[in-house]
Amino acid sequence: FGLRKMQTVTLIPGDGIGPEISTAVMKIFEAANAPIRWEERNVTAIKGPGGRWMIPPDAKESMDRSKIGLKGPLKTPIAAGHPSMNLLLRKTFDLYANVRPCVSIEGYQTPYTDVNLVTIRENTEGEYSGIEHVIVDGVVQSIKLITEEASRRIAEYAFEYARNNQRASVTAVHKANIMRMSDGLFLRKCREVAETYKDIKFTEMYLDTVCLNMVQDPTQFDVLVMPNLYGDILSDLCAGLIGGLGVTPSGNIGANGVAIFESVHGTAPDIAGMDLANPTALLLSAVMMLRHMGLHDHGNKIQTACFDTIREKKVLTKDLGGNSKCSEFTAEICRRVQDLD
Amino acid sequence: FGLRKMQTVTLIPGDGIGPEISTAVMKIFEAANAPIRWEERNVTAIKGPGGRWMIPPDAKESMDRSKIGLKGPLKTPIAAGHPSMNLLLRKTFDLYANVRPCVSIEGYQTPYTDVNLVTIRENTEGEYSGIEHVIVDGVVQSIKLITEEASRRIAEYAFEYARNNQRASVTAVHKANIMRMSDGLFLRKCREVAETYKDIKFTEMYLDTVCLNMVQDPTQFDVLVMPNLYGDILSDLCAGLIGGLGVTPSGNIGANGVAIFESVHGTAPDIAGMDLANPTALLLSAVMMLRHMGLHDHGNKIQTACFDTIREKKVLTKDLGGNSKCSEFTAEICRRVQDLD
Ligand SMILES: CC(C)[C@H](C(=O)O)[C@@H](O)C(=O)O
Ligand SMILES: CC(C)[C@H](C(=O)O)[C@@H](O)C(=O)O
Repeated sequence: FGLRKMQTVTLIPGDGIGPEISTAVMKIFEAANAPIRWEERNVTAIKGPGGRWMIPPDAKESMDRSKIGLKGPLKTPIAAGHPSMNLLLRKTFDLYANVRPCVSIEGYQTPYTDVNLVTIRENTEGEYSGIEHVIVDGVVQSIKLITEEASRRIAEYAFEYARNNQRASVTAVHKANIMRMSDGLFLRKCREVAETYKDIKFTEMYLDTVCLNMVQDPTQFDVLVMPNLYGDILSDLCAGLIGGLGVTPSGNIGANGVAIFESVHGTAPDIAGMDLANPTALLLSAVMMLRHMGLHDHGNKIQTACFDTIREKKVLTKDLGGNSKCSEFTAEICRRVQDLD
Repeated sequence: FGLRKMQTVTLIPGDGIGPEISTAVMKIFEAANAPIRWEERNVTAIKGPGGRWMIPPDAKESMDRSKIGLKGPLKTPIAAGHPSMNLLLRKTFDLYANVRPCVSIEGYQTPYTDVNLVTIRENTEGEYSGIEHVIVDGVVQSIKLITEEASRRIAEYAFEYARNNQRASVTAVHKANIMRMSDGLFLRKCREVAETYKDIKFTEMYLDTVCLNMVQDPTQFDVLVMPNLYGDILSDLCAGLIGGLGVTPSGNIGANGVAIFESVHGTAPDIAGMDLANPTALLLSAVMMLRHMGLHDHGNKIQTACFDTIREKKVLTKDLGGNSKCSEFTAEICRRVQDLD
């Protein structure tokens, strides 16, 4: 008690409702005695030498040292040529895997029950290469770039994830019937990696078929792995099945052990500073983070307290169907966390 | 009576269950006194001069003359290099717009009610350009091609469709935040065309946001227009919302007044020839065809008979939850069509 080694996490509160929901998470972590020391940093891009946009050196330095970040929503400044902050962070820390567990939340009603799947999105290439040309006036091409290395890396991540999280199967999602060479390469790497994970079932499905089957019966899916754009689409679709971005956690796993966990909803400027925001997505992302750090007990305790609060329906923020403040919802979770001790 | 001018339609029964469901449609059309003369053709590709795959000349000639086709499911032969029959037909007749109305069917339960939207997919370019390269070993690029011409053409089609079908709004679906030049061009053309249709509301949305909102509340959508791959995905997703490909009609609109209407489900070889198939998707596609030909009364009558049959739940094929044969389901619709006279 008190002697547990503290670990540092870089906290990026973000914009709009970001600071409020970050405060909520910190309070709940404190109630849970999570051995985390927060190091707060602002990542809003600055213009570096040579005119390149980059995240501020002290934020980069903190992340490089702590290896673990927790991030609220960021608005992308409208300065001309300013990059999406999300893309800049992915690039800066080579966050190659975006992981989104989508699990039905008891008591929070949607048209679906028993959803329990994970989308794993290749986060560095594909349709996000940024390479585009005007061929002649009125004719534009965008380049989708698929590499053997990134495909193998994400496939390996997906199978490792499945194994470490007691998941039975991995499905590769593709359109190799149309993009035979690029999606074909991606698929081939998935197949090769699958060969070395005999304990995990491997299947392949067309993206359109996945979308159709997903809305008909999402319970048939387990771990899904796919190129960048398909992941952008499917991860949001799946979030919709369980209640939207307000309750969906997300993690970005990078090379060299770096990882940033984040809520993927917006900054909600209309309610910022009004104590009305719902911290659930950031809190569940923080739970993913605790598990990633090996702090399963703390993660489980916080998750249980959060889900119990939602199931009981007594103290909920407005978007969750209640009329409590963010601080009241937070206090309720804190109370339950302490009761679980 | 009897003096109505007959119009010719090229019928492509297709493979597997194709002939059975085509027969069902012909019977129902007969019961409805639809003034259609069927010209049956086989489109399975053959190798033309120069080794290029092409559809047989007599099928091409029939389509060029009739301008209107109705097509069952086609299997793509596994001969090396054989193209997808769907892609070949799109190419041969420059079928640039794929149109899929997704309307909830009363009595056929899904997690959603009151869905009433139409996806309009650009069908000729984008991610389906077929242009791919190996850059160096292990690095592949696929080219997404977006042209001003095709973008304007599909945008114009979408707005015309909205106007002619008493639809209030058109939403352009894109990822111009990522593919700034290609999706940017597509979006710009949509905006330009929107300017000339002041009676139709125009909005723009990211594809990922559409997917998320679609599964949360599809009733917010009306007409959606988008590049090829996004249409492939969204049209299947939306079909899933109303019950799948077995009940979803589809039309492919081409240049020069050519149009092919088709069921987009598979050939179901496991039940082919067993009088178990569900002809609904092909029948509703045929209803779209009748409306396209200006034969609204016949179309409405057949649609009503079909929906009444499904709503009453007495005579349904297995996939619809009943235990009737295809021929019994067909006879029931015929009976109702005649009662409506
Ligand atoms: C903000 C945008 C660049 C981003 C994307 O398209 O990847 C977003 O949709 C996401 O999923 O993080
Ligand atoms: C069969 C395949 C080529 C096709 C596509 O990807 O377009 C199919 O999914 C469709 O939607 O017609």
